Amino acid sequence: MTTVHDLETPSILIDLDRMEANIARMQAHCDALGLKFRAHIKTHKIPAIARQQLEAGAVGIACQKVSEAEVFAAEGFHDIQLPYNILGERKTARLADLAIANKVTVSADSEIVIDGLQKAAADKDVTIRVMVDLETDIHRTGAAVERVVRLAQQIDAAANLHFAGLLVYPSNPTVRPDLQEALARLHEAGIGVDSVSGGGTGAALHAAEMPELTEIRVGTYVFNDWTTVKRGWAALGDCAMHVMATVVSRPTENRAILDSGSKTLSSEFDDGYGHIVEYPDARIYKLNEEHGYVDLSACAHKPDVGEIVHVVPVHTCVVTNLHNQIYGVRGDEIEVVWPVAARGLVW
Amino acid sequence: MTTVHDLETPSILIDLDRMEANIARMQAHCDALGLKFRAHIKTHKIPAIARQQLEAGAVGIACQKVSEAEVFAAEGFHDIQLPYNILGERKTARLADLAIANKVTVSADSEIVIDGLQKAAADKDVTIRVMVDLETDIHRTGAAVERVVRLAQQIDAAANLHFAGLLVYPSNPTVRPDLQEALARLHEAGIGVDSVSGGGTGAALHAAEMPELTEIRVGTYVFNDWTTVKRGWAALGDCAMHVMATVVSRPTENRAILDSGSKTLSSEFDDGYGHIVEYPDARIYKLNEEHGYVDLSACAHKPDVGEIVHVVPVHTCVVTNLHNQIYGVRGDEIEVVWPVAARGLVW
Repeated sequence: MTTVHDLETPSILIDLDRMEANIARMQAHCDALGLKFRAHIKTHKIPAIARQQLEAGAVGIACQKVSEAEVFAAEGFHDIQLPYNILGERKTARLADLAIANKVTVSADSEIVIDGLQKAAADKDVTIRVMVDLETDIHRTGAAVERVVRLAQQIDAAANLHFAGLLVYPSNPTVRPDLQEALARLHEAGIGVDSVSGGGTGAALHAAEMPELTEIRVGTYVFNDWTTVKRGWAALGDCAMHVMATVVSRPTENRAILDSGSKTLSSEFDDGYGHIVEYPDARIYKLNEEHGYVDLSACAHKPDVGEIVHVVPVHTCVVTNLHNQIYGVRGDEIEVVWPVAARGLVW
Repeated sequence: MTTVHDLETPSILIDLDRMEANIARMQAHCDALGLKFRAHIKTHKIPAIARQQLEAGAVGIACQKVSEAEVFAAEGFHDIQLPYNILGERKTARLADLAIANKVTVSADSEIVIDGLQKAAADKDVTIRVMVDLETDIHRTGAAVERVVRLAQQIDAAANLHFAGLLVYPSNPTVRPDLQEALARLHEAGIGVDSVSGGGTGAALHAAEMPELTEIRVGTYVFNDWTTVKRGWAALGDCAMHVMATVVSRPTENRAILDSGSKTLSSEFDDGYGHIVEYPDARIYKLNEEHGYVDLSACAHKPDVGEIVHVVPVHTCVVTNLHNQIYGVRGDEIEVVWPVAARGLVW
C-alpha cells in the first residue's frame, strides 16, 4: 500500500471522500431545481473525474480550449461545450473536426466569430451549435443585450450553425434583468431558444433566483479552495485539494519558508497565498517560484524545519494546471494517481 | 519553412538574435570583472539553451530542484549548483546519487539540513559540496551572519561534505557589509572559503561593487521581461520572449479580450500583466485563466477582433513553466521548437 508518507513534497492531494461529497451535493442541488448540470473540467483536467461527474448526473462537460475538448473527446466525452470565442482558421477547423462525431456547442459575441465558425463547419459539412454570449457585470466577453437578436439571426441564417440559446458567466442574479430582456427580444423576433446556460460555483448556489437558466456549468466546486471558503460558498471541510509542503527554513522566530512557491501554488492572492491547515493563524504573505514565505507571528505553536504541512490553495484550477499528476487519497492511503491529462493546453 | 504564421495562439516565441545577444553581453560583462558566470536554468528549463550559455563561457548551471538537476545531468551537465535547502530522505538520496558522477553543490542555512545532507552522502559514499546561505535584505532563507561560522564548522566536520563557501541572493551591494563580516569571521576561525556565489539579473549589473563575489548565477537575463525593463536592467529591445496572442473579443470601444490569461502569462503583476508591443498604450489590467482584459482607452489605434498581438510578459521564468514547448524564431521563421524539458518539476 502506498501512502502519502511515500510522496515527495510538494504534492497535490485530493481527499476523495470530500470530492465525492462535493460532486453528489452539487448534483442534488441542481436536480432539486430541475437544472441540468454540466461539469466544467478546467478545475481538474482529468477524464476519470469528469466520468464520476457524469455518472452522478452531469449532462456533459465544458472546456475552455479546443485542445482540452480533443483530449476529452478521445476519452469518450461526446457532449462538449466551449464557452469561448473560437477564432482562427486552424482552431475552427479542429472544432469542426470534433463536431463530426460529437455534440459541440460554442459561444460567440461577434459577427466575425460567427463567420469563422460557419466557414469551418461548411468546409467539413458539419453542424456546430452556437450560443450567444451575453455580457454580465464582470465585463469580460459578451454582447450587449441590444446585439443579441442580430447575432442570433446571423447564427440562424448560417447553413451549418444551429442557434443553441444564450450563455452567461457568471450567472449571478444581477444579470437577470438583461437576460430577461434578451429572451423577450428573441421571443419577439420569433427565434426559439433551446437553452440558457449559466456558470460559476457561487452562481450555482443562487440558481433558484435565476429560473430562466436551463443548465449550469460549474468547475471549482469539485475541489473547492480558499476563495470559495472566503466567499462563503463552501466550508473548509469541503476543500478536497491540499498541497503537501515541507518547511525548509526557519530563519527567524516568526518566519518559515515552504518548498512551495508560485510554481506550485500559483501567484493568485486572496489576503494570502493559501491557508495552512495545521497553522490556521499563519499567513503565506509572499511567494517566489520555489519559496513560500510564512508569517508565524500570530501562531502559538510554530513548525520546525522539516515539518510537513498542508495548504488549501487560493485557486484550485490554476494549481491543477501547474502539476503533472495529482494524488487521490483516502486518509493516508493513495488510492489513485491521476496524470493531469489536459494540463497546459492553451490552444 | 515553418513560420510564426503557422502557429496557433497563444504561443511563446523566443527571438534568437536577442537571446544570443543577451547571452554574449552578460558573459562579456562577467568576463570583464573576472567573475565566473553560472547559468540559472529556471528561466528556460531547456538543455539546448544552457549549452549555448556554457559555450559562451558559463562554468556550470544552477537549478532550484533535484528533479531539474536530474534532467540536466542526464543531458550532460556535470557542474550543478542547487541554491536551496534540500530536505527529506528521498530528496537527499537522489541528490547523493547525482553526486556520484557530477560536481554537486547545494546551500544550507540550518543544522538539520546539513545533518540530512551528511547522512545521504555517507549512505552513498559520495561528497556533496555545501555553501552556507547568508541572509540578505529580501528576508527569505539564509542564516544570520552570527551563525555562519558554526554552520561552516559543522559542514567541515562532516566526513562526506565539503564546505564550498558562501551564497547570497540577491547579491545586491546592500548585503556587502554582512558578507564582509561573515568572510572575516570565517578567516578568523581558520576556515577556507572556496567561492562566494551571488545571484540575480539586477545584482549582476552591480557586481563591480561586490568584489568579494567569485561567481554569479543569473537566469532572467537570457530572455528578459517587463520587470527587468521596468527596473532599468534591460531595454525593451532586449526582451527575447513574446507571447503571441489573439484578440478574441472587443465588447466595447475601450476593452479588448486576449486569448491569453493566467494559464499563459501567469498571474504576476507589475502595473499590468504584460506589455503589448503593438499597442504600448494599452494596459492588461486583469486576467482570468483564459482571458486577458485589455484597457484600450489610451490607444489612438485599437485592435480588431482576430488581430494577433505580441506581449512581453511580466516574469519570463513563470511563463516558461506554463508551456510544453517554446519556439525559437528569427524574423518570422521558426528555427527551432524546444520542448520545455524541465517544466513543472517541483521535486
